[in-house]
Amino acid sequence: MERTTEAGFSTLSDLEEVASKRVLEHVWAYVQGGAGEERTLGANRSAFRQWTFRPRTLVDVSRIDTNISLLGTMVRAPLFVSPMAYQGQVHPVGEPAVARAARDAGILAVYSTLSSFSIEEITRNSGSVPPWFQLYLQPDFEVSRRLVERAEKAGCSALMLTVDTPVLGVRDRQAPGGFAIDSTVPIGNGSDVVPPSRSPMEQGKFYRLRSEAGSTWDILEELLSITRLPWVVKGILTGDDARTAVHHGAKAVLVSNHGGRQLDGAPATLHALPEVVDAVGSEVEVYLDGGVRRGLDILVALALGAKAVGVGRPILWALGAGGEEGVRRYLDLLKLELATSMALVGRTTIAEVDRSLVAKTDI
Amino acid sequence: MERTTEAGFSTLSDLEEVASKRVLEHVWAYVQGGAGEERTLGANRSAFRQWTFRPRTLVDVSRIDTNISLLGTMVRAPLFVSPMAYQGQVHPVGEPAVARAARDAGILAVYSTLSSFSIEEITRNSGSVPPWFQLYLQPDFEVSRRLVERAEKAGCSALMLTVDTPVLGVRDRQAPGGFAIDSTVPIGNGSDVVPPSRSPMEQGKFYRLRSEAGSTWDILEELLSITRLPWVVKGILTGDDARTAVHHGAKAVLVSNHGGRQLDGAPATLHALPEVVDAVGSEVEVYLDGGVRRGLDILVALALGAKAVGVGRPILWALGAGGEEGVRRYLDLLKLELATSMALVGRTTIAEVDRSLVAKTDI
Amino acid sequence: MERTTEAGFSTLSDLEEVASKRVLEHVWAYVQGGAGEERTLGANRSAFRQWTFRPRTLVDVSRIDTNISLLGTMVRAPLFVSPMAYQGQVHPVGEPAVARAARDAGILAVYSTLSSFSIEEITRNSGSVPPWFQLYLQPDFEVSRRLVERAEKAGCSALMLTVDTPVLGVRDRQAPGGFAIDSTVPIGNGSDVVPPSRSPMEQGKFYRLRSEAGSTWDILEELLSITRLPWVVKGILTGDDARTAVHHGAKAVLVSNHGGRQLDGAPATLHALPEVVDAVGSEVEVYLDGGVRRGLDILVALALGAKAVGVGRPILWALGAGGEEGVRRYLDLLKLELATSMALVGRTTIAEVDRSLVAKTDI
Amino acid sequence: MERTTEAGFSTLSDLEEVASKRVLEHVWAYVQGGAGEERTLGANRSAFRQWTFRPRTLVDVSRIDTNISLLGTMVRAPLFVSPMAYQGQVHPVGEPAVARAARDAGILAVYSTLSSFSIEEITRNSGSVPPWFQLYLQPDFEVSRRLVERAEKAGCSALMLTVDTPVLGVRDRQAPGGFAIDSTVPIGNGSDVVPPSRSPMEQGKFYRLRSEAGSTWDILEELLSITRLPWVVKGILTGDDARTAVHHGAKAVLVSNHGGRQLDGAPATLHALPEVVDAVGSEVEVYLDGGVRRGLDILVALALGAKAVGVGRPILWALGAGGEEGVRRYLDLLKLELATSMALVGRTTIAEVDRSLVAKTDI
Repeated sequence: MERTTEAGFSTLSDLEEVASKRVLEHVWAYVQGGAGEERTLGANRSAFRQWTFRPRTLVDVSRIDTNISLLGTMVRAPLFVSPMAYQGQVHPVGEPAVARAARDAGILAVYSTLSSFSIEEITRNSGSVPPWFQLYLQPDFEVSRRLVERAEKAGCSALMLTVDTPVLGVRDRQAPGGFAIDSTVPIGNGSDVVPPSRSPMEQGKFYRLRSEAGSTWDILEELLSITRLPWVVKGILTGDDARTAVHHGAKAVLVSNHGGRQLDGAPATLHALPEVVDAVGSEVEVYLDGGVRRGLDILVALALGAKAVGVGRPILWALGAGGEEGVRRYLDLLKLELATSMALVGRTTIAEVDRSLVAKTDI
Repeated sequence: MERTTEAGFSTLSDLEEVASKRVLEHVWAYVQGGAGEERTLGANRSAFRQWTFRPRTLVDVSRIDTNISLLGTMVRAPLFVSPMAYQGQVHPVGEPAVARAARDAGILAVYSTLSSFSIEEITRNSGSVPPWFQLYLQPDFEVSRRLVERAEKAGCSALMLTVDTPVLGVRDRQAPGGFAIDSTVPIGNGSDVVPPSRSPMEQGKFYRLRSEAGSTWDILEELLSITRLPWVVKGILTGDDARTAVHHGAKAVLVSNHGGRQLDGAPATLHALPEVVDAVGSEVEVYLDGGVRRGLDILVALALGAKAVGVGRPILWALGAGGEEGVRRYLDLLKLELATSMALVGRTTIAEVDRSLVAKTDI
Repeated sequence: MERTTEAGFSTLSDLEEVASKRVLEHVWAYVQGGAGEERTLGANRSAFRQWTFRPRTLVDVSRIDTNISLLGTMVRAPLFVSPMAYQGQVHPVGEPAVARAARDAGILAVYSTLSSFSIEEITRNSGSVPPWFQLYLQPDFEVSRRLVERAEKAGCSALMLTVDTPVLGVRDRQAPGGFAIDSTVPIGNGSDVVPPSRSPMEQGKFYRLRSEAGSTWDILEELLSITRLPWVVKGILTGDDARTAVHHGAKAVLVSNHGGRQLDGAPATLHALPEVVDAVGSEVEVYLDGGVRRGLDILVALALGAKAVGVGRPILWALGAGGEEGVRRYLDLLKLELATSMALVGRTTIAEVDRSLVAKTDI
Repeated sequence: MERTTEAGFSTLSDLEEVASKRVLEHVWAYVQGGAGEERTLGANRSAFRQWTFRPRTLVDVSRIDTNISLLGTMVRAPLFVSPMAYQGQVHPVGEPAVARAARDAGILAVYSTLSSFSIEEITRNSGSVPPWFQLYLQPDFEVSRRLVERAEKAGCSALMLTVDTPVLGVRDRQAPGGFAIDSTVPIGNGSDVVPPSRSPMEQGKFYRLRSEAGSTWDILEELLSITRLPWVVKGILTGDDARTAVHHGAKAVLVSNHGGRQLDGAPATLHALPEVVDAVGSEVEVYLDGGVRRGLDILVALALGAKAVGVGRPILWALGAGGEEGVRRYLDLLKLELATSMALVGRTTIAEVDRSLVAKTDI
């Protein structure tokens, strides 16, 4: 009861509303907003409603084991915290609080180049599951290299390259002035880190050359050469791109549309998942983020071939609603609902969750 | 007119709203709530809107016969009261009042392990159609055995084993404290009866072993050995599970998703019905509950192969709206609408209601 | 402008709302209400939105001819006023005013057994297109015979037998007391005329034998033997029933679900139309009513095989909104929109309106 | 920032609402209204939501080239201002302001016969991309000829014949009095220009012969004979009509349903596009208007075969919201979003935008 009070919310149903009242309005617009008309933002969520389960009953579900291994590291559940920038803007405790909550939940978290705290401070607050570091390519490749070296040295066990941000998507909720960063909250990884793009209007009359915009798949091989850590490619939505990523050395791909924040009109990630799994699922791990809110969503994505599933906005909601305690509670509820759902469909291990578990809803 | 006043509502259209105003708020949340986002709760209802009738006109419908036999007992309509816990919380008259209304309507009712009144008191208020007793497996099998013996001795003519509750579903409307039972209303069947699961949060950090969770299909054979009454298995949603239930001795299966209260993401029961009917409909009786509100719903489910149809929440609404008189009126309206609908589609007996009566709606 | 004021409304878009404010509340409930949950009532309308036109341009549309012949009588448009009871309750001018408006529009109107004015008074106000008379079978066949004789003698040119009312549908908006007829408005055709059914609750505990309920297709042959006028069968929704009607001597069938007032769950008439046209369209005329509101609806139904289309509720709305002048204006607008739509799709005669004009909407 | 203030709106999301508050109510009704129930108006827009992109990542998108050639003239983007009447009613600066904004954006604009300013004044404000002139056939062909000659002499480089307006569609929002033109705003092209049709009610009892209504495809050949400029046919919705137009000499066709203002029930233009492209896309240029609001809409239409896309209402919104500055800003945002979307799908030139870019949304 006391915990509920600390977390600020009590169930997955009231989380978003509680957070909307606690987070500053302009930060909330940044957190919630999507690109364009937010079609993709909405589609990410509604895609999950198109699948129903085919449960098995009277299976011995007295022990539910949600453990899996992600790129060789055991985690307590097939879910991870997706990389999200500026967590310190949502709540001053920022990424280190998320790290402590993830540590205690035994799950993986991925941190953004644009974190409010440095990667070293974040890893210090992490546990036996080392965090991963997400890289936005920097205008100067030497800065990218330095960030990778810092992440590796700090103890990260994998790196994630975002490929869906050559330019910034048009986000009307943030216009015209763009997301106004509270300048008292530092960019954790240093002053030479540059956001992936200025606001579209600042890109000037029509379009302006930027270094990330010029990157091609060769960059992945360059990145492979500067570290021994495995690379995950984030932002894949087709089988072709997935094959290309693997061909260039990716050890995993994350099916993602940047939470609907980049290309409005991009497919819901759950729709894109099966094609990517068919293309590269037998060779590398395939993850998904976008629209995951509840435990049953995880189960649906896993049934369709995802190895693990990232959660994004709900982590920020939980952080905004109750700081570290909010994130703890959200992860507890998520894991509980995952385990409960597994019990109710009669699957006791993640290995038993396969395509036979779900059917397309007949609407 | 006076009856209307006593019943508290006048038509099937105003029943739910009347009840919502008369039932205590926390009890109403318990009655209405479903698991998770309540997708399955909504799908149960909307599934009925996907079918339309193919009526025949100028058939002699001067006599409509809705009688059928359920496991050998004649009833006046192919509908039954589904088992629902704690009816005394909704209205102090509780299960005995429901029993009297069912008796006078000539229909079957099934009572929960977790009834507010004892099974003996319920059967005393029942008529020529003996009630059935629903069993939640108890942590101690001896308690289960004792409950079965009491039900048989009290005059129940069949037993119903619920198999979709190895753990309790996540029901946000009841969180965080869970459904607070009014302790002045007793658990009718004795103090050693244990609800099927504590609230999810009480299941503790992640998951806790429970005896029901460990049950497998062997339990059905064990239960068959302790009584001569036939067993109905409740909570089946696939053809595979239906075949397994019949293989282990079930005399009937009830296609049910627990009114959308257990596994969010479970299919609408009306969607699941044809597969179950195809699998075991030629061997045993197949029933359905979930989303049934009106007379025409019964006709749709029967056309798709159900032998009879259970009604749940509307009984609680009627009980809350007008106590025993409310339930009487609801059952009257339901039977009237069933008979009226049969007349209007040109079918005079239940035997004439088959797959040719309905067509998938072209939306 | 003055006319607009007299009619009470100005376009097809504001008609219903204007009427809702001018008609007495209990009469409005009777006019608007459908059976059950009003699924069929809604489906009748939404079915029209599933079709789009395939227009042809640069066709000479300087003359649009909407004339057709219905059972041998030329009318100025392929539309008719569907039979509706108690028009004097909606506005004191009642059926004679509708007759005068239909006369001046050159279109057919069908009048109910349960008209507020006598069939003789109605025909006196009709023009060169003789009205048709709709028959509800009376408990005493001699009364049916007398009504038919009166209609024939008064100058009606065809008779319409309603077959979808063996019992009255369950209409919650009229419950519990049923539609309270204002007793100062007489039943036009005499005191021995009996409404097709009492309210469902009055049908007593469960169901009560009534003579109409016992009618079969033989009754049609009996009716054919007492008049030389052709019979139209109203209330057909399947090809089988259409064939049976024709086999027993019907000269036309009206695809109708009684405006969604009888069997909730009946298909939208527009969905049922093609099957009926396929079954009997080459032998007899096929009409449709249900959901027709605007000129383009007429065109859609004709493209799908209807010979003519009945309008119901909008006539009552227009009558309620502006009495005779309201009906005139509604018919003007309807005919204007039909002609305008024909011009815009490049069809100048009704004969050119065929299946090639429409395509199923890709939603 | 100052520009935002001048433009009156800041993003594509707030444009319509800002405009609705600044434009006079009766003009707004004229701008926004569609025919009938506005089904087609709505369908135009929703059709775009049925397609999603298949993006390619890590493509070098540092230079995005949106240039194309339209009937031989280079333009800076595959979009044009659709012809719209009476722009001076929306804002006193009218068509010349639109022309200056289009000039500076380097895009094509098409002006209506019914412009508030003369075609000579409009062309004087245009730049290196000559405007096109839209012709409504006049009752007296000599007037049509004179308009064509004026347009050619004034420097227009193509002519557009509207073929979907033989009579005016039924637009309830403008009824009963029709669109009341502010008589202080002149009809730019002279007093003998006649609007394509009077309001439907003025067409009198049923229908009145009009010269445009009598036109057939021969008129196109007549028009070809009086000018050397190429003709575009506007208002095509089927492959058959497209072939006929090309057969009679059209150099391009514009798939259009007049912004949903003429034939309610016409298909969404995006649905009609592929059939027209299949029919004549290899011979002539195919354009589309209707429902285009944002940059990604342009990309979808191009992927489905359009050579260029017209924008209509948003130009009036922008004009109403901020006069010339509003139109500039709208065109800036539209082009920016187009370029941004191209970068995010990994296509750097319009030639790379083909059918492989989009997939039907799985709803």
